[in-house]
Amino acid sequence: MTVLEQKLNELKERLFVMAGIAEGMVADSVKSLVNRDAALAQKVVETDEDRVNHLENEIEDAAINLMALYQPEASNLRTIAMIIKINSDLERLGDHAVNIAEAAQFLIPRPAVKPLIDLPRMSEFAITMLKDSLDSFTRADADLAYSVCGRDSVVDSLKDQITRELVTHMTSDAATVDRAMKLMMVALNLERIADHATNIAEDVIYIVKGEVIKHGRGEPQA
Amino acid sequence: MTVLEQKLNELKERLFVMAGIAEGMVADSVKSLVNRDAALAQKVVETDEDRVNHLENEIEDAAINLMALYQPEASNLRTIAMIIKINSDLERLGDHAVNIAEAAQFLIPRPAVKPLIDLPRMSEFAITMLKDSLDSFTRADADLAYSVCGRDSVVDSLKDQITRELVTHMTSDAATVDRAMKLMMVALNLERIADHATNIAEDVIYIVKGEVIKHGRGEPQA
Repeated sequence: MTVLEQKLNELKERLFVMAGIAEGMVADSVKSLVNRDAALAQKVVETDEDRVNHLENEIEDAAINLMALYQPEASNLRTIAMIIKINSDLERLGDHAVNIAEAAQFLIPRPAVKPLIDLPRMSEFAITMLKDSLDSFTRADADLAYSVCGRDSVVDSLKDQITRELVTHMTSDAATVDRAMKLMMVALNLERIADHATNIAEDVIYIVKGEVIKHGRGEPQA
Repeated sequence: MTVLEQKLNELKERLFVMAGIAEGMVADSVKSLVNRDAALAQKVVETDEDRVNHLENEIEDAAINLMALYQPEASNLRTIAMIIKINSDLERLGDHAVNIAEAAQFLIPRPAVKPLIDLPRMSEFAITMLKDSLDSFTRADADLAYSVCGRDSVVDSLKDQITRELVTHMTSDAATVDRAMKLMMVALNLERIADHATNIAEDVIYIVKGEVIKHGRGEPQA
């Protein structure tokens, strides 16, 4: 293994630490909502965002240094550029988790609009997409990346179903409108997390296959 | 001017062409809603997304080639990495414009919930933030970048105001719920556009000042 390859592996390891933290934040934010755990929501809002922002800068600096010191050839440069982009995606995941935790902080002291079944399912689904998109990057596995892109429509369906239910609640009981809107925000932030996973997977396909698939976003919202 | 500097300028030029297209898509999507122009909404959905996706790949390839051929030193590498990230942000702006245009397609044939005054204002504000964030990058102007970051809270206030009004409409007239939810989607997509501008501005500050400002996102949603 060359020194560059070794350094590149170290950089990927750090990216996966970052990914683990971002995934944990998303999982915790939804858990805080489902379990009505105000302390956990507060932990997501306060502690973790700084850590993610700090890690993002560290990883980007390390990536730039790698390029400056080892002058990698085009294929490694593409991998490093990809790391910089994924890194930026992961930082935003942290932002979405914070948004969800803040919605949880609003909802926890108030009566439930409906049992939370679809949102945890959507959350698990989005996190699995994210993990798979990162795996597809590590293993240069275009098939897995295609499968991630294909799952984007399932997330959209889940979101549409949640939207329809919430619209029904809001229409039949005006007192639920503000809480239902917050639940809608949670669903939209989860959708955005799945979008990030899809973006990563599209990039993997572009690298592996040298092929651009039509970006599968822009489906009807809500 | 060295060959690298010249090539870097060319790359920036292409990024600004991309930015112009993405800004135009956002402006057109909101215009289609305000003017009830179904043809314009359709144009945003169909024509422009492919063009933006194609341009994104071209710019990224050119950036990688530049790094491979000219082995720039660290500060130019950082600029190129920044171009790759902005490029990715701009592509997603196209996605948000498509989401807005699709909401417009739902709303155009239906009666108006309320006069559209805040949404066009929010759209203009977000587009100006985006233009300024790109200018701050071109001119390495940290003060302008700081000003963009500061404006993020204005966008949040506009969104909060829109949300409150829509909640009032939904609460007092259940028949408006589905249309109000679509208008909410438009506001959230505009908020996300302002977030992209803020991300770009934060990166500019990091480059220019070698300083990380606390990411001003994660404000309460809705």
